Amino acid sequence: MVITAQQLADLLGGTIEGNPSVTVSRPGKIETGQEGEICFLGNIKYEEFAYTTSASILLVSNTFFPKKNIKPTLIRVENVYASLAFLLDKFGAQTQQEAIVSKMASIHPSVKLGQNVSIGDFTVIEEGAEIGDNVILSPQVFVGKNAKIGDNTLLHPGVKIYRDCEIGANCVFHAGVVIGSDGFGFAPQSDGIYKKITHTGNVVIEDDVELGSNTVVDRATIGSTIVRKGVKLDNLIQVAHNVEIGENTVIAALTGIGGSTKIGKNCRIGGQTGFAGHLRIGDNVQIQGQSGISNHQPDNAKLYGTPAFDYHSYLRAFSVFKKLPTLAKKVQELEKSIEKTEKTKKKKV
Amino acid sequence: MVITAQQLADLLGGTIEGNPSVTVSRPGKIETGQEGEICFLGNIKYEEFAYTTSASILLVSNTFFPKKNIKPTLIRVENVYASLAFLLDKFGAQTQQEAIVSKMASIHPSVKLGQNVSIGDFTVIEEGAEIGDNVILSPQVFVGKNAKIGDNTLLHPGVKIYRDCEIGANCVFHAGVVIGSDGFGFAPQSDGIYKKITHTGNVVIEDDVELGSNTVVDRATIGSTIVRKGVKLDNLIQVAHNVEIGENTVIAALTGIGGSTKIGKNCRIGGQTGFAGHLRIGDNVQIQGQSGISNHQPDNAKLYGTPAFDYHSYLRAFSVFKKLPTLAKKVQELEKSIEKTEKTKKKKV
Amino acid sequence: MVITAQQLADLLGGTIEGNPSVTVSRPGKIETGQEGEICFLGNIKYEEFAYTTSASILLVSNTFFPKKNIKPTLIRVENVYASLAFLLDKFGAQTQQEAIVSKMASIHPSVKLGQNVSIGDFTVIEEGAEIGDNVILSPQVFVGKNAKIGDNTLLHPGVKIYRDCEIGANCVFHAGVVIGSDGFGFAPQSDGIYKKITHTGNVVIEDDVELGSNTVVDRATIGSTIVRKGVKLDNLIQVAHNVEIGENTVIAALTGIGGSTKIGKNCRIGGQTGFAGHLRIGDNVQIQGQSGISNHQPDNAKLYGTPAFDYHSYLRAFSVFKKLPTLAKKVQELEKSIEKTEKTKKKKV
Repeated sequence: MVITAQQLADLLGGTIEGNPSVTVSRPGKIETGQEGEICFLGNIKYEEFAYTTSASILLVSNTFFPKKNIKPTLIRVENVYASLAFLLDKFGAQTQQEAIVSKMASIHPSVKLGQNVSIGDFTVIEEGAEIGDNVILSPQVFVGKNAKIGDNTLLHPGVKIYRDCEIGANCVFHAGVVIGSDGFGFAPQSDGIYKKITHTGNVVIEDDVELGSNTVVDRATIGSTIVRKGVKLDNLIQVAHNVEIGENTVIAALTGIGGSTKIGKNCRIGGQTGFAGHLRIGDNVQIQGQSGISNHQPDNAKLYGTPAFDYHSYLRAFSVFKKLPTLAKKVQELEKSIEKTEKTKKKKV
Repeated sequence: MVITAQQLADLLGGTIEGNPSVTVSRPGKIETGQEGEICFLGNIKYEEFAYTTSASILLVSNTFFPKKNIKPTLIRVENVYASLAFLLDKFGAQTQQEAIVSKMASIHPSVKLGQNVSIGDFTVIEEGAEIGDNVILSPQVFVGKNAKIGDNTLLHPGVKIYRDCEIGANCVFHAGVVIGSDGFGFAPQSDGIYKKITHTGNVVIEDDVELGSNTVVDRATIGSTIVRKGVKLDNLIQVAHNVEIGENTVIAALTGIGGSTKIGKNCRIGGQTGFAGHLRIGDNVQIQGQSGISNHQPDNAKLYGTPAFDYHSYLRAFSVFKKLPTLAKKVQELEKSIEKTEKTKKKKV
Repeated sequence: MVITAQQLADLLGGTIEGNPSVTVSRPGKIETGQEGEICFLGNIKYEEFAYTTSASILLVSNTFFPKKNIKPTLIRVENVYASLAFLLDKFGAQTQQEAIVSKMASIHPSVKLGQNVSIGDFTVIEEGAEIGDNVILSPQVFVGKNAKIGDNTLLHPGVKIYRDCEIGANCVFHAGVVIGSDGFGFAPQSDGIYKKITHTGNVVIEDDVELGSNTVVDRATIGSTIVRKGVKLDNLIQVAHNVEIGENTVIAALTGIGGSTKIGKNCRIGGQTGFAGHLRIGDNVQIQGQSGISNHQPDNAKLYGTPAFDYHSYLRAFSVFKKLPTLAKKVQELEKSIEKTEKTKKKKV
């Protein structure tokens, strides 16, 4: 695809600064931008490269004002990342695959297959499962008994869906995702032995959910573990039994969520965060990575620390923490100084 | 299954308060309990729902005394979770599967198969492996050369057991578990290059062990990495080479255990905990999630923090940490106040 | 293999103390060393066992001076771990496998296979992929379209390589590794919905890289996510889109690296460390486990804490943190003492 700055600006609803007839054939990174590439400046940390890049077109925000001369033609847009998403979609568009059901897959005769389904080699679909239209099951996928996969959903190689779980439409699950394994529930006996608690529930994942590689969502003890519409989970995340994650919440890698915790809508949660079980987390909550959440949290909370409290308060406390040896020394000196004063007084007396 | 409160109480050795002839057909969650459901109150955080639930029967502890009127028939038991485990087992009982060895599995002719073994599609069992009675190998499982799987053990889809590893009886390994990959052992050379250390050992997992999805246990450099009888590991846990985990120890998700560390019996370890290598951790140790253990620990230690120390001491120190800016300000004020006193004195002198 | 102390010393360039004609047939652990075993003392924490082991030969450092009598013949070497690596390699040497391409694998006719390639059962290699000489693809591996695997590389069971990714020579990837899944990149829309950003890039892994089980490396948004020559990653590690990891850097388990962060050469990074995105980390950086890196770091930095700062400064601050309740009490007492002085003065006045 070769396209002019003018055509791109029209597509993106952007405005041009520079030569509107310059052409590009592919996207590139601003640090290594070459002639014929369109690059983008989304994070101001990369501003220096705007002045040195050899890219032909640079996608920038309406609010970006260069401090130096810039060579590439600029296309100004309101939301750089949204425009980038749109562009990469255009450049990255895969040629449409023909839907093929592999002869080397194992599909139980009772399975209901939608229209235009692709099923890869060595994939297994067990009795009673239902697969929606346009679904792509990559090679080596497992779909257990009576599980349901919604329309247009893509399961990458090696994804495992246990029996009775329900996956919505337009979902993308990356390689190694596991849905519906038993929760970590055991009843301690008087002799120290743990008796397994049978997990009679399932997992329900709504539409438009993306799950990163090797992420795990456990089935409920009773009822359902629920991941609501539009949730995006990164790689290697643990979602325990009976958890519920609200709409459009995004969670970064290696986070763990304890059993029965409910997280609200539109939350943004940093990587390696840990949640205790049985918590209620409000909407629009923002959590710094590596925090440990051990209490209920209201809407709009901003959190940091283990155990976590207000983000800004944590930073203030931590800035004192770094200087604790100095503080301790100062207190010691004050102590001595006062002792001296006391002694002097006593002498006087 | 439809069953009366009286029948349930008899099964559980419990006592009834209310109508003994009320019937239920399934378990439910206390928050959403419906007529015909038996719910349970295991965690006092959910007490409010006991007064509002529409469940027909509520399973409660002998020590629970309601503060308000309660509609459902109560069944009182000594250990709610143990009774729940028993009940879910009854309600969740799967109809016994017929044992089938898939024609789409790859089983080396030398493999010893026990009685009544199930082997799923696209599962591989290599030369010299031994599979016990009533074992279920789900689809897409891998069992390497000379590995042994004990009686009644269930490996969920995609579990990988490397060569020479030994798995006990009555174990359950969830999807994506890896047993016996090489430990992270490399000898640094003078030029900065790391030379791989061949791992000549194996992994030994004793009876009654449950491992969560995508959990990994590495093989020993020499000898065995050992997981003792009754251990329960949650999802996404890392067990390094030559680790040993004692009987009936339970560990929550995303915990990492460094090489050659030995953990005692009956420990309870929170999620995202990290252990350095070469440690000795006693029996009955309890560790709060996200702690970092960098020293040997005696029996019965309760720990928190990175690096971890006594749990209660950590909480006390942390409560001061949160108010550090105030403390620092106070010290500054004391300093000024003393300076002033000194100056006054000097003037007087 | 039965071998004398003299032969071993010759192989290792070591010197003997004791009987040069004693023989061993296998390696063992110093704690449980038996007659006929060669054990090693690599970590001084295990010194006590040197005086009690029944091993026939003990491999020790030139700088080790026993405090008591030692029974085994000693072989002294400069680098115990390097010698151990060499020895285990000899003892652990697998009998060379015949290279077999399974008839139960699915290999697209366009795939280029090198000499002496092994391909396991139920492995899938898609259109246009290139497989180098002596490569071993274990069972249930997936190699996507146009992916390249370098000479002598070993992929353990269940490894998934997405399309277009490039893997170097002499690499070892353990079970469940995922290479090339989409990065966690979404453009937030005004209504709170996240739009997926198409990832047009790939992953490039250079020669001599070892990746632990279930570790994930995401593909770049644009360009490549790069893991340089000689890097060793432990199990369950998350490498986000557009990350670059420098030569011979080693990273322990459960670490997460945020998008576009560049880590230098020869770094040593502890387990469960978290890196924010868009960071520049220098060469030879050492990071204590569970640290959270939120800023650029110069060469040779030693770090600890969340957010991380200088390692020794952290330890000093933390030693005061543990005694914060005492410090707070002391400040309170000083306050009272000064108040009293002030009152006395006032009275005097």
